[in-house]
Amino acid sequence: MSKWVRFVAADGKPALGMLEAERIAEYRGELFGDPVATGRTFASSEVRLLSPCLPNKIVALWNNFRALAEKLGKAVPLHPLFFLKPATSVIGTGGAIHRPARYAGKIVFEGELGVVIGRECSNVSEADADRYIFGYTCVNDVTAADLIGEDPNFAQWCRSKGFDTFSCLGPAISTTLDWASARVVTTLDGVERQNYPLADMIFPPRTLVSRISGDMTLQPGDVIACGTSLGVGSMKDGARVRIRIDGIGELGNTLVG
Amino acid sequence: MSKWVRFVAADGKPALGMLEAERIAEYRGELFGDPVATGRTFASSEVRLLSPCLPNKIVALWNNFRALAEKLGKAVPLHPLFFLKPATSVIGTGGAIHRPARYAGKIVFEGELGVVIGRECSNVSEADADRYIFGYTCVNDVTAADLIGEDPNFAQWCRSKGFDTFSCLGPAISTTLDWASARVVTTLDGVERQNYPLADMIFPPRTLVSRISGDMTLQPGDVIACGTSLGVGSMKDGARVRIRIDGIGELGNTLVG
Repeated sequence: MSKWVRFVAADGKPALGMLEAERIAEYRGELFGDPVATGRTFASSEVRLLSPCLPNKIVALWNNFRALAEKLGKAVPLHPLFFLKPATSVIGTGGAIHRPARYAGKIVFEGELGVVIGRECSNVSEADADRYIFGYTCVNDVTAADLIGEDPNFAQWCRSKGFDTFSCLGPAISTTLDWASARVVTTLDGVERQNYPLADMIFPPRTLVSRISGDMTLQPGDVIACGTSLGVGSMKDGARVRIRIDGIGELGNTLVG
Repeated sequence: MSKWVRFVAADGKPALGMLEAERIAEYRGELFGDPVATGRTFASSEVRLLSPCLPNKIVALWNNFRALAEKLGKAVPLHPLFFLKPATSVIGTGGAIHRPARYAGKIVFEGELGVVIGRECSNVSEADADRYIFGYTCVNDVTAADLIGEDPNFAQWCRSKGFDTFSCLGPAISTTLDWASARVVTTLDGVERQNYPLADMIFPPRTLVSRISGDMTLQPGDVIACGTSLGVGSMKDGARVRIRIDGIGELGNTLVG
């Protein structure tokens, strides 16, 4: 199992690394090229993790889990329903989620699986989609929930979910995750709030890559956030949200008011 | 008046240039840095223009003109209503708009003013916003219109407007446009279809930069597409759409089926 991370060590420069138990082996080169081990290793406790990739865009799904669709009384969609989150919204594990300066309303966490694209692709078939998937990470798709329905004529998905620090990614990218047997477990200040099976996805990763690559070119580092299921809730300022997918690790972020 | 372009000459390399009547003076360096004239010039007819900037994201407005809001019976919004268009959707003047491989439905043109951001900004005031505006360009915000309402529960703005080639920008960025006295004139195969005053905007450029920079960090090269007004219509395969704003120039693109 390979788990890739980006990190900053004492020298302050962002670096690429592979997680090996409690240590990180440093690599040079491009994550989506053929990075080479430098021979240097660091204790995980010595470094600060960054977002494991730098997406140009995050394609984020709505209504992609059967259990949540049933609870909300929504029909299963015919095509993946998505909005876009900008590159400027990305942070890694440990980074602070900042309450927007001009927003005092409800802020919601959503634990999700993220599919990390490894090669540029356009109009790929489901059968070929695995060739373009580099791996999987955890996502917290943070939302300024009161803004979505603020205007009666236009649902503000991109605005409510696009604020700086509202796309938490990490801690690592697993290149070997068996997503179909994995669960997303979200805790809020230590209390479990989400625990749902990824097998309940309406459009699974291969289908998402195929269909969405027919909607727009996907580029290396782009992330498809697969949508969330039951248990979404709001976070008070100071709250810590942890999203765990066994095989990837735990993504933890605190909301700073 | 400065009009900046990006272009490809006979050597095939993208270059930066300033339009001077029928000639283009080549510059080296970064558009948002302090580019320096190389001394080389080209006849406009010798070069192929590219998109004048390479946005990380396009923030595209909905319901930002009073005349269209009135026609559609929509209330004036309290905050700019926007969706995001990805970098992969951008082409320049002369580039082909490609009908998506898996879509046989209606494709619509929307002539718009584009605000080009010149400096990174976050939470700027209206009074300061001009410092972050580099200039103005023409935008054709192309839309696969049948997809917007395909799902009854979720308006698919990002999908219907995010296809590759669906964000036409150009031909140039004017750094001195007096937008308040300018009009957007759109022709379809030579027939005028839109001719509306930019003074009718609900949220003008300074307000857009201030408000949207409170929603997400804006970066150099990012474009705010100011929304469209009356006269939007559909294009048949092979149709040529030209969008003209005096002081910027004419953006022309053909839909290829």
